[in-house]
Amino acid sequence: MHFDHAGIATDDAAALADQYATLFDAPVAHEEEFDGMQVVFLDFGDSYFELLEPLSDEGAIASYLDSNGPGIHHLALATDDIESALAHARELDITLIDEEPREGAWGHEVAFLHPKDTGGVLLEYVQH
Amino acid sequence: MHFDHAGIATDDAAALADQYATLFDAPVAHEEEFDGMQVVFLDFGDSYFELLEPLSDEGAIASYLDSNGPGIHHLALATDDIESALAHARELDITLIDEEPREGAWGHEVAFLHPKDTGGVLLEYVQH
Repeated sequence: MHFDHAGIATDDAAALADQYATLFDAPVAHEEEFDGMQVVFLDFGDSYFELLEPLSDEGAIASYLDSNGPGIHHLALATDDIESALAHARELDITLIDEEPREGAWGHEVAFLHPKDTGGVLLEYVQH
Repeated sequence: MHFDHAGIATDDAAALADQYATLFDAPVAHEEEFDGMQVVFLDFGDSYFELLEPLSDEGAIASYLDSNGPGIHHLALATDDIESALAHARELDITLIDEEPREGAWGHEVAFLHPKDTGGVLLEYVQH
């Protein structure tokens, strides 16, 4: 499976995108408002950083920032068949946060696995 | 700049490597004891997960596990010229954890940037 992106919780996606673009020569590949967040994807050639800035006090990223402050939130693996990937995880007794794929940013299909069963790492399947 | 790997702190690198290898079809690319840790690199095609298990109570990863539990520790970007990358970060007033490159796992040259200046994300330059 191919590494797709690292999700990063931030309180200022535009400023962090500017800094990372300069520091790592990683231009903005896509940005949009999605699900109450400003979302910016930075292009690292064959993978992305997904910067996630909540636009209100509600939602998973706002809660994460409250509890942890800014930082790395999740890691995402690309799959061509997200339904099969979820079925495989289910067979391995991994608790699923999303029992079915749902729409994520950039029009992707996404589903998250629960970190309690994956070494404390919040992992996402993403299908472009 | 190219995404190289996500570093993951764990108390059982072998078990996590087995699980991830099955879950994500990501075989072990390299493993070694390094700097008081069991280090396992999993191959995601053009990038890696680096699993880091401390073999004693000392060192940065042991401290991280004590404070945070297992989970995502850092993100690493590959560069062909780590000296220039560090000089660039210095020009941008990023605090450097490593003023000079040092030997990392797998024989790579590595240097870390301080997360206080990079949106709470511990970032590493790595030169293969």
